[in-house]
Amino acid sequence: MVKRYLDLVSLERALAVLGEAFRCRPRTERVPLEEASGRVTAAPIFARLSVPAIHISAMDGIAVRSAETRGASESRPVVLTDAVRVNTGNIVPPAYDAVVMIEDVWIGEGTYTVRKAVAPWQHVRPVGEDIGESEMILPSLHRIRPHELGALAAYGVTDVEALALSAGLIPTGSELVPAGTRPGPGQAVESNTLMAAAHLRALGVEARRYAIVPDEPDLIRAAILEGIRENDILIVSAGSSAGTRDYTASIIAELGEVLVHGVAIKPAKPVIIGKIEGKPVIGLPGYPLAAFTILREIVTPLVARYGFPVPEAGTVEAALTTTLHSDIGTDEFVLLSTGRIGGRWVAVPQSRGAGVQMSAVRANAVMTIPAAKEGVEAGETIRARLMVPRRQAEEAVLITGSHDPCLDRLADLVRPGGVEVHSTHVGSMGGLLTLKKRQCHTAPMHLLAPDGEYNIPFLRKYLPDEEIVLVCVAEREQGLISREGATLDDLPALRYANRQKGSGTRLLLDYLLKERGVDPALIRGYEREFTTHLGVALAVRSGEADCGMGVYSAAQALGLTFTPVATERYELAMHADTLEDPRVRACVDAIGSDAFKQTLLQMGGYRVSETGARRVLP
Amino acid sequence: MVKRYLDLVSLERALAVLGEAFRCRPRTERVPLEEASGRVTAAPIFARLSVPAIHISAMDGIAVRSAETRGASESRPVVLTDAVRVNTGNIVPPAYDAVVMIEDVWIGEGTYTVRKAVAPWQHVRPVGEDIGESEMILPSLHRIRPHELGALAAYGVTDVEALALSAGLIPTGSELVPAGTRPGPGQAVESNTLMAAAHLRALGVEARRYAIVPDEPDLIRAAILEGIRENDILIVSAGSSAGTRDYTASIIAELGEVLVHGVAIKPAKPVIIGKIEGKPVIGLPGYPLAAFTILREIVTPLVARYGFPVPEAGTVEAALTTTLHSDIGTDEFVLLSTGRIGGRWVAVPQSRGAGVQMSAVRANAVMTIPAAKEGVEAGETIRARLMVPRRQAEEAVLITGSHDPCLDRLADLVRPGGVEVHSTHVGSMGGLLTLKKRQCHTAPMHLLAPDGEYNIPFLRKYLPDEEIVLVCVAEREQGLISREGATLDDLPALRYANRQKGSGTRLLLDYLLKERGVDPALIRGYEREFTTHLGVALAVRSGEADCGMGVYSAAQALGLTFTPVATERYELAMHADTLEDPRVRACVDAIGSDAFKQTLLQMGGYRVSETGARRVLP
Repeated sequence: MVKRYLDLVSLERALAVLGEAFRCRPRTERVPLEEASGRVTAAPIFARLSVPAIHISAMDGIAVRSAETRGASESRPVVLTDAVRVNTGNIVPPAYDAVVMIEDVWIGEGTYTVRKAVAPWQHVRPVGEDIGESEMILPSLHRIRPHELGALAAYGVTDVEALALSAGLIPTGSELVPAGTRPGPGQAVESNTLMAAAHLRALGVEARRYAIVPDEPDLIRAAILEGIRENDILIVSAGSSAGTRDYTASIIAELGEVLVHGVAIKPAKPVIIGKIEGKPVIGLPGYPLAAFTILREIVTPLVARYGFPVPEAGTVEAALTTTLHSDIGTDEFVLLSTGRIGGRWVAVPQSRGAGVQMSAVRANAVMTIPAAKEGVEAGETIRARLMVPRRQAEEAVLITGSHDPCLDRLADLVRPGGVEVHSTHVGSMGGLLTLKKRQCHTAPMHLLAPDGEYNIPFLRKYLPDEEIVLVCVAEREQGLISREGATLDDLPALRYANRQKGSGTRLLLDYLLKERGVDPALIRGYEREFTTHLGVALAVRSGEADCGMGVYSAAQALGLTFTPVATERYELAMHADTLEDPRVRACVDAIGSDAFKQTLLQMGGYRVSETGARRVLP
Repeated sequence: MVKRYLDLVSLERALAVLGEAFRCRPRTERVPLEEASGRVTAAPIFARLSVPAIHISAMDGIAVRSAETRGASESRPVVLTDAVRVNTGNIVPPAYDAVVMIEDVWIGEGTYTVRKAVAPWQHVRPVGEDIGESEMILPSLHRIRPHELGALAAYGVTDVEALALSAGLIPTGSELVPAGTRPGPGQAVESNTLMAAAHLRALGVEARRYAIVPDEPDLIRAAILEGIRENDILIVSAGSSAGTRDYTASIIAELGEVLVHGVAIKPAKPVIIGKIEGKPVIGLPGYPLAAFTILREIVTPLVARYGFPVPEAGTVEAALTTTLHSDIGTDEFVLLSTGRIGGRWVAVPQSRGAGVQMSAVRANAVMTIPAAKEGVEAGETIRARLMVPRRQAEEAVLITGSHDPCLDRLADLVRPGGVEVHSTHVGSMGGLLTLKKRQCHTAPMHLLAPDGEYNIPFLRKYLPDEEIVLVCVAEREQGLISREGATLDDLPALRYANRQKGSGTRLLLDYLLKERGVDPALIRGYEREFTTHLGVALAVRSGEADCGMGVYSAAQALGLTFTPVATERYELAMHADTLEDPRVRACVDAIGSDAFKQTLLQMGGYRVSETGARRVLP
């Protein structure tokens, strides 16, 4: 019987179910020391040898009876006849109880002239100084660090009992093609098990990917049975919803038990927690970001229950830059770009579309809007769970405003210096307002004022009293992008792909239309907004529109015709004090570099004579 | 020509040499996506597909012309005849520009009754919403995260150009035996290349270990030539000093150039930076902690020069618990156990012996005493570089005082709950004084007062006005450890292995001697101090002493005879407010658990009737 609806439970309840329904006892296996780094100890490890095994010399010198050196000094050396030459690490024979350093001895024919007295056991490393046989070296559930292998080997350990857990990953879906195959219309690349396998391996779990199974109940059933037989945990990708072709839940119910079908979280409601032959079966939703959410919020805690220490990068308290609305009753996870501006952390929400995987690529943190809240206001302090080491998040430069592909090239240029550029595309005006609130390091913009001046009139108006530096990225060509060429005069006859309000390109169009006395209402498609240059170009290439305005590189990338209409000043605006930040300075320096100018010229559509030039306000 | 001295340079200079002498250009290789997680991009990665490739539906519903739904509502539904049923992810055909959700439609015979108007492009995921063909997905020198594989696959990427670097590891030394072989007298297990290989692999470097080479110049020369031919970087373990059998430097000089021989750091002075055929050759010192220091301070920065992002766990400012003296002119690295007590970080230095590998096993951080300083005072704030994620360091419970092997078992018991016990052995009195300064969470002690009472008289004296809780770990038997049995009456006739001043066991001996009216001066070996129970037992087993005092488990571990002489109260003392710390509470709860009592009984030598009992002061 297939259910056509989901009984949502809270995430908290779903996690409790994991604890109640499964014993979560991992297997263990013996791993040779060579392969033990990163593995998790299944039991305490004890020393099999004492180190040192016997008293050894800590210095190059001679082994002596300390009592016989009493009173020895530079001025009153003592001559010994019974001593033994030892090097560092050599055995100190039982007859002796100290070592005199070689610098303090003259060695003659059978005599040793000592110029310094030594105390009993001086310069001797006693047996067991490092560790004694039977002492515990490491507790259980410890992830072995590389340098610990050296200690383990030295203490006579040759292999370790380590946790072992295997997860089977079954991709289902008739529309899926394997990675490496170009998907046809209506097809998609199967990528969720690829991601899941890497995620699990990073936790120390052995992940086994199975072949794609089409949406046919008999094939899915057979694959699940095989996966359960061969693994400790099974993950079935997609088919977890309640649509007509979602068989996963009913097959799990048939072979075992469905414990949870649907969790009140976003993205990722349609998740299944099932049990077959006592083993957990997780049904992953198909949307990649939903799948990623379940891996992070449910699969990772499940793996932790088996004893695997789960690395957590920690949290920071950050000011949210944008108001987010959310549904009561659902825990929503929002991906973030977070960074430090001045002394405080700022968090920029990424696109919340469940289909936008780039959100997760760009994000370095994630926040939760709890089920009890309707949303979070801009400026509120939220807790950002880091997805990268804190140190790396501290290297983030937040660039918010108008986007240009050359910013990605800039990011690439500064990366070797450890600077991580996070650019968020909100248009020039959006960037200006973010900069005003000091919620980004710098705002890229190309805002054309009615007097023909770029950027400065807007900064004077919106940030009137602040000291602002403008760094010119490039003088950039904007043009009409079309399949076979178009000019401004053609516009009324064509279907146009416009940009969103607040974008510099939209402002430029309006300026040009006004200059020509053309009423925007006459432009077909004026109300259809795209948010990027490339979005406009894609609309043109697909035939949905005949032309739109954008940068040369967007036209070129898609093999379209570019007809220049204007050259604009594309600048990074920032508060003057921000330039003291070494990461921001690294970006500004990179903009002025020959390498960046070369890149711009190669990309085409830019003039570089002003690149790196600064203007200061007021 | 072999040099018999080292010309020390500063660490800073040594690192500068790496930059000046080597181009550090990594190789690159194509890696299939399945193996790309954790690899470092050698070049930016661009999208090969737009996602979505065409406009697709974001909902289950019908594709419509939005204009035709104008005005539709519950009370005034609009009937359409031209629409198409679509599921989430289906193509929205070019004729349509919006999707009405299935909940808002009644589907009849060729008619669609719509109860809600939709705006143009509503519920449509436009072409390129996620990414456009040609857009940059990842910059170069980015370590690929597991979830990014999903995005890469979806965007048509099938393999990535990744950095590749191989390091050869050559262990040298006639005294070495491979891990897994029990070393004979004067032999040692070769563990440095094992550690180095794991360290390098964790950074993303391919590490190749070669067989142990005895101290013979011709064999070392041949091994180095082979290693240089087959790798980008070569690391030669040991033979890097200036002793009579230290050939590494002269052979490097013969085959290439020695750039640095000796760096003013401790531990690890005798390090070599050489160059053969343009490739870096690092000579590691033989002491494991010295080798670890060079891996961390020189090899890791070298790898970073090739573009590999080096994860850094960050730093904390911590109060040092103990005064450390250090040589002017040498940067000394000191391993630390660091943890949070109340609101502040505290750092406990580990043993500084270069032969004590357990220091690195126990440590979660490291500090530098810079060359210009003679040392650091107790209480001074130092910068601790974490060797574990910050989050993990925050879980540390610092237990400082008397040691007992059962504390290791306790550590093992609380580990599954994420608590990391760091115990430091400074004896009962040392722990008491550390607790007084609030530089540990809790101090284990067994201090016998002249009136026969344990611990309380000392706490009343040293922490008179503070609210202290004592948690009984066990009533523990102390006894004489000997090869064939010994009683207190035998002591004057035997060679004794004593414990250090301030230890509870030393106090117990003094108490018992006084009780019997025996003058300590009559005890042979009274002045020879061991710092652990096991150290005493090892001295007895080796024949160096005839008996000593210690706990049952130490005698048992080494197969010695144990003759009980006293039962003492071994307790954890802590400030009452520390009990509010959940990690400390977890330890206290674990002590009271049946599992812990069972462990004590299995170990032997403990009575558990008082285990978990609390006493409160004042």
